[in-house]
Amino acid sequence: MYRSHTCGQLRTADEGKTVILAGWVQTVRKFGSITFIDLRDRYGITQLLFGEGMNENLNEDSLSREYVLQAEGIVQLRNNKNPQMLTGDIEIKVQRYKILNKSITPPFTIQDDTDGGDDLRMKYRYLDLRRNEVKKNLELRYAVNRSARNYLHENQFIDIETPFLIKSTPEGARDFVVPSRMNAGQFYALPQSPQTFKQLLMVSGYDRYYQIVRCFRDEDLRADRQPEFTQIDCEMSFVEQEDILNMFEGMVKSIFKQVKGVEYSEELPRISWEEAMWVYGSDKPDIRFGMKIANLKSAFKKDGRIIAKGELVNGRGFGIFQQAETILAIAVPGCSEYTRKQLDELTDWVKRPQIGMQGLAYIKCNVDGSFKSSFDKFFGSEDLEAIAEFANAQPGDLVLILAGLEERTRKAISDLRLELGQRLGFRKKEEYKLLWVLDFPLFEYSGEENRWVARHHPFTAPKPDHIGIMIQNDPLIENATDYLNHPYATIKANAYDMVLNGNEIGGGSIRIYQRDLQEKMFTALGMSKEEALHKFGFLLGAFEYGAPPHGGIAFGFDRLCSILGGSESIRDFIAFPKNNSGRDTMLDAPSTIDDKQLKELAIESSAPKS
Amino acid sequence: MYRSHTCGQLRTADEGKTVILAGWVQTVRKFGSITFIDLRDRYGITQLLFGEGMNENLNEDSLSREYVLQAEGIVQLRNNKNPQMLTGDIEIKVQRYKILNKSITPPFTIQDDTDGGDDLRMKYRYLDLRRNEVKKNLELRYAVNRSARNYLHENQFIDIETPFLIKSTPEGARDFVVPSRMNAGQFYALPQSPQTFKQLLMVSGYDRYYQIVRCFRDEDLRADRQPEFTQIDCEMSFVEQEDILNMFEGMVKSIFKQVKGVEYSEELPRISWEEAMWVYGSDKPDIRFGMKIANLKSAFKKDGRIIAKGELVNGRGFGIFQQAETILAIAVPGCSEYTRKQLDELTDWVKRPQIGMQGLAYIKCNVDGSFKSSFDKFFGSEDLEAIAEFANAQPGDLVLILAGLEERTRKAISDLRLELGQRLGFRKKEEYKLLWVLDFPLFEYSGEENRWVARHHPFTAPKPDHIGIMIQNDPLIENATDYLNHPYATIKANAYDMVLNGNEIGGGSIRIYQRDLQEKMFTALGMSKEEALHKFGFLLGAFEYGAPPHGGIAFGFDRLCSILGGSESIRDFIAFPKNNSGRDTMLDAPSTIDDKQLKELAIESSAPKS
Repeated sequence: MYRSHTCGQLRTADEGKTVILAGWVQTVRKFGSITFIDLRDRYGITQLLFGEGMNENLNEDSLSREYVLQAEGIVQLRNNKNPQMLTGDIEIKVQRYKILNKSITPPFTIQDDTDGGDDLRMKYRYLDLRRNEVKKNLELRYAVNRSARNYLHENQFIDIETPFLIKSTPEGARDFVVPSRMNAGQFYALPQSPQTFKQLLMVSGYDRYYQIVRCFRDEDLRADRQPEFTQIDCEMSFVEQEDILNMFEGMVKSIFKQVKGVEYSEELPRISWEEAMWVYGSDKPDIRFGMKIANLKSAFKKDGRIIAKGELVNGRGFGIFQQAETILAIAVPGCSEYTRKQLDELTDWVKRPQIGMQGLAYIKCNVDGSFKSSFDKFFGSEDLEAIAEFANAQPGDLVLILAGLEERTRKAISDLRLELGQRLGFRKKEEYKLLWVLDFPLFEYSGEENRWVARHHPFTAPKPDHIGIMIQNDPLIENATDYLNHPYATIKANAYDMVLNGNEIGGGSIRIYQRDLQEKMFTALGMSKEEALHKFGFLLGAFEYGAPPHGGIAFGFDRLCSILGGSESIRDFIAFPKNNSGRDTMLDAPSTIDDKQLKELAIESSAPKS
Repeated sequence: MYRSHTCGQLRTADEGKTVILAGWVQTVRKFGSITFIDLRDRYGITQLLFGEGMNENLNEDSLSREYVLQAEGIVQLRNNKNPQMLTGDIEIKVQRYKILNKSITPPFTIQDDTDGGDDLRMKYRYLDLRRNEVKKNLELRYAVNRSARNYLHENQFIDIETPFLIKSTPEGARDFVVPSRMNAGQFYALPQSPQTFKQLLMVSGYDRYYQIVRCFRDEDLRADRQPEFTQIDCEMSFVEQEDILNMFEGMVKSIFKQVKGVEYSEELPRISWEEAMWVYGSDKPDIRFGMKIANLKSAFKKDGRIIAKGELVNGRGFGIFQQAETILAIAVPGCSEYTRKQLDELTDWVKRPQIGMQGLAYIKCNVDGSFKSSFDKFFGSEDLEAIAEFANAQPGDLVLILAGLEERTRKAISDLRLELGQRLGFRKKEEYKLLWVLDFPLFEYSGEENRWVARHHPFTAPKPDHIGIMIQNDPLIENATDYLNHPYATIKANAYDMVLNGNEIGGGSIRIYQRDLQEKMFTALGMSKEEALHKFGFLLGAFEYGAPPHGGIAFGFDRLCSILGGSESIRDFIAFPKNNSGRDTMLDAPSTIDDKQLKELAIESSAPKS
């Protein structure tokens, strides 16, 4: 060993010991005949004191930042203690030292608030990784990894590794493929997830499986999406939905406790997909704050009387409200005094193409009990009060109203809600709110292909009550515009998502385990019998030999870590991430390969030569 | 949950409880009006008793092997207890049951000694995995995984995930490559190991890294080699070879203790590569037994007198011995009475093309003290005694002698030693002998390319004393036949292998951490400056910013598990292995992909259409 102790280890009790440390030079501070050097390693920082004799040598060596240094000396108490540092009570009076390696000047400072831009830090990722900020992220990631493993181990789960070189069965996202040299003209695919393997393991009787495993999706990268990502992947046999929810609620709470010291004792709220969409406009609601959405065209009960659909907004001669398919409102707490300028800015915000609304209506619920709206011409004070009350507004609140087509308006008001929640400080970094979203639709409609696609994946079971609907109806969509009235649109899945602070961190389902139902599912997705057999024959076959009821879940490990670390970006929690073009700029990958390699693999590039 | 208990859980103390079990039908035994069913799950087997009432229903359902069954009933003590089974004291008197899924007849029996051949079991791997034999292997694998992780965690190692989509830098084995859709004409490679990444992590200051990680090599598959395999991959900073040896000796001992209950207290013997090659003819000797090799042409000391090179065998007029470059002998214990037939069979064995010897000489060291050899014509009794003594033979032993070119003869006698060790029962499954092999040559000579290749990999440091030889000499080999006399042939590496029962289970080295030495290494391997920069510029760059001294090791996880499980085959310890053509016959992968996929990836297949 080049050291007797680490740079985070020595304390007052070590006074007088002769020690050897090794690490990186963080700072050099010269004061006449003495020099202080802060020496850094993974475990901390220790101050080295170069006194007479030593100091002169130092000058010759012109030691500077990021040099690798080994120093031997005696632990002594500091004159000026530094309570900020764990080793701040002591310093090493250096008697001997050796420069183990030199460093040229780094292209950016190795500090929390570095002067390095994103591109530079990615190119020199090995230097970026030295920053305490990034190190803390990777340490947190390891703590989550360890904590998840321990919980799963204690609950009889067994880690079983599944293959990476598998078969291409694109369904949804694109596969990355790997040409096979030994089987010319054929390709492996990299797994988008170990889905079918974990189901086979249940058929094989392994009962409880887990893996923290890399997955691959060749999608066009949006910001903060990586072509390779990590999942905590789990599957259980002989379970119903309730068992899975309890087991993994337990896991996440255990991670919170061990990694963040947060005792998350309350039960996770559960909300149906339907309700989430109407109350939050989103299937991954952030419930750290209220501002629930009111559907102004819905029917509701008030003081025992039924208010009919649309009665709140129709028949006042306001064309926009009259004609809109959907009108949604949120009450923004304490914002009744927003100025014209602030309201205009919000209106511009919702008119941006990303949001795509025509305009924004509002009602100011003044603290004096009066109301002022952007549509006073059509609505009397009582009308406004009724709307405000339905939107659950208090005096001093600002009711914001969006009108338009249902789907877009829901999305828009959800975005507006999140934006205002952010601006008003309701989305606190260190507050964590988990919930389950349940009862997702089994199918989604693909306009492009005029067919059903699986919302989760083709292995998700329908709710037991809905199996009949699936079996008894023809999946064919005769009238594309009317797909919502097809019986398949009503089928709910035995699927669940765990949501944390507005992010889906995990999702799963109870699986189909009967061959005939799985075949029906493939048919429903427009797959021919031949195609289904070619792609998933092994799974259909497995279901004939005694497949148990089973279900599972997968957590997005990168995302989970980033939220626990209080960051928006998963890249900060991946040691060697790729940029938005799927490139590793440090390695300069992907890159061209030798013609010899191409030839051996029996492939040719059809890309234009550059 | 479909069950209240598992099939491995119930004991006498549970008598009288009403329980629900779920699992697979292992056996059905009918005795008139009652039926016994053994119900199996991952945790064990429990006997179900179907008495009157129940039994009749059973007949209608025609329940058979591998059906998935849920049964509710009362725990009662058995009349005929089965001490072989953990649940053998009790049975469940069934009151209600439900068939959860049916099974057609499996293509082979789900038993330890199955009737299924290899191909059939691979095609139906999900059924093969049900066999207790295979399940035990995967459980052992998980135990090793867990044990390694725990040890490394306790020793401050941190699991950091490295990327799978990296850059192709073939050096040695071929890379698997992945065409990039977003960067047409460019390719990622799958990692042969995370070597450069773990070194970068040391440069980044992570100090102690580990990962249990998949690696990929596109090699022509020999028996029992997989295109994807798993490594326990580790790296440490500020260490010397001694530190690594101690740390990982500790890890393997800890695995032995936790997984096998074996207290491996003795220190691991250490042997130089040079000695291993002369004493065992192999760089991964099986030291569970002796039969060390004697080099009959070597010089040695006896009773204070120096016996000169060749004195034991030369000058007796026996041409074969006279002319052979090398003559090696082993003493086979207790085999002096081998018959003519047995000796002929051994002679045939060494003459097989895989061994490639011309013949086999022998000396029978009879228990009466006399000697009888296959070359009595040339050697007197005293000569034979001298050879036998030098080969360390005892009365009753059989000395076997091979002569020929050095390299081939060493390989041959090593194979012969292992073969006889096997036949004589010296290679006991449940005996474990570990050792370190040290001081490997840094370079090997490639005749094909007339250049040096790295024996371990290009990042391995020479022994400190040998750095000078490397720097001061030109790597160019002027005279190919005389390469052994080139100074580079004498350079030893700071590299080490851990060997268990004749298998290399781990290997590693102290790394180069200086840019100039690393550049010299690339030059020595015949790489141009441009090529080195193109392939490894990121690493050379990293070495300029304060790289610490570091080193590491990687264990072949599949192999380690198979040896601990007492099996020859790593495939038995992989959930979904590939066959010798790199195919997964269950998935039928690799396979052709859609033209649309090829087009998107900007590649074309140049394989002949089938």
